[in-house]
Amino acid sequence: MITQRPLEAFLNDLASGAPTPGGGSAAAVIGAMGAALLSMVCNVTIGKKGHEAVESDMKAVRDESERLRARLTAMVADDIAAFDGLMAAYRLPKSNEEEKSRRAEAIQINLRAATETPLACARACAAVVALSRRAAEKGFAGVVSDAGVGVLAANSALRSAALNVYINAPALKDRAYAAAAMAEIEQLLDRCARESEAVFELVRGRLG
Amino acid sequence: MITQRPLEAFLNDLASGAPTPGGGSAAAVIGAMGAALLSMVCNVTIGKKGHEAVESDMKAVRDESERLRARLTAMVADDIAAFDGLMAAYRLPKSNEEEKSRRAEAIQINLRAATETPLACARACAAVVALSRRAAEKGFAGVVSDAGVGVLAANSALRSAALNVYINAPALKDRAYAAAAMAEIEQLLDRCARESEAVFELVRGRLG
Repeated sequence: MITQRPLEAFLNDLASGAPTPGGGSAAAVIGAMGAALLSMVCNVTIGKKGHEAVESDMKAVRDESERLRARLTAMVADDIAAFDGLMAAYRLPKSNEEEKSRRAEAIQINLRAATETPLACARACAAVVALSRRAAEKGFAGVVSDAGVGVLAANSALRSAALNVYINAPALKDRAYAAAAMAEIEQLLDRCARESEAVFELVRGRLG
Repeated sequence: MITQRPLEAFLNDLASGAPTPGGGSAAAVIGAMGAALLSMVCNVTIGKKGHEAVESDMKAVRDESERLRARLTAMVADDIAAFDGLMAAYRLPKSNEEEKSRRAEAIQINLRAATETPLACARACAAVVALSRRAAEKGFAGVVSDAGVGVLAANSALRSAALNVYINAPALKDRAYAAAAMAEIEQLLDRCARESEAVFELVRGRLG
């Protein structure tokens, strides 16, 4: 399992000329790091003297950030599977009409998965961005910068995942699905660009 | 060694209520991932048919991105050491004047390290951002999105590292050094905000 690789080995894999892991897996890892940092802010705040009033809220944020972290961690491997599936489809034989038609169908099925996978990653990253305000506002001031790092990580992971939607959606024959995927990505990007900057400024303001 | 931890264990450490690893280590990892993705673009492009003209340039970019990746990977542990050093200084006894003075001195020494460490991380991330344009312009089109993910990662890591400079520089008694550190960070942030967006747009343009 790729997420069982030591961090340095994962970085070596990323840097190598092998097609996977690539930017899609990196986006999932960075999104998972963003979620983990929100969990950290909550974990430090829960039980801290003077923070009793926000405890139940911090527990609710942590439940959600841990759920998102688990999902994003699983997406590191999902991205590799989607990429490998698409490459395998492109490599199918095309020496006669029947093979060509079977190959074209396999490409479409795998293109859809290779669009859906980064779209799901983008949605999870957007959920991390949306969650970050509560951690940044109510978390213990001593770790508020970690909420700032978390929201930056999540937003850059969202933008990274979007690139893979841009790559794969245009080749989809199901134009209605492709248009819906592109429209959803634009909406997520737009909302999260504004919210992540607002939360980052909130964090800077709380630093002193 | 922290970077020998499996990726999932590192994410667990990040999410826990333990003070380290925190946002500073996360910034170094994300910066290292950015550098690794530039290396990947170069590694895929080097030796690829039709890309002979850019080969020496891709080798030069890769040499530099691998150097930066090694430096950023080492900074994951540096950040923990700087944080632990500062916490240890704050915990020194202060029951008499001599102890107070020794403690104050230790705090200043460790605050300086806790400012210098994220500043060095920010510099390395800025160097990754500066390097990304060549990978995005000259890299094989099939992996250009990885250069886009790389530049986003490096810029968000730079902004993340900046937060730790903001936290520690204000408490430094050496005001000249603190002002120089803050001025340098602002300059890096400003330059890289513009350049990372320009490279991201360049990547989007090359996608289709």
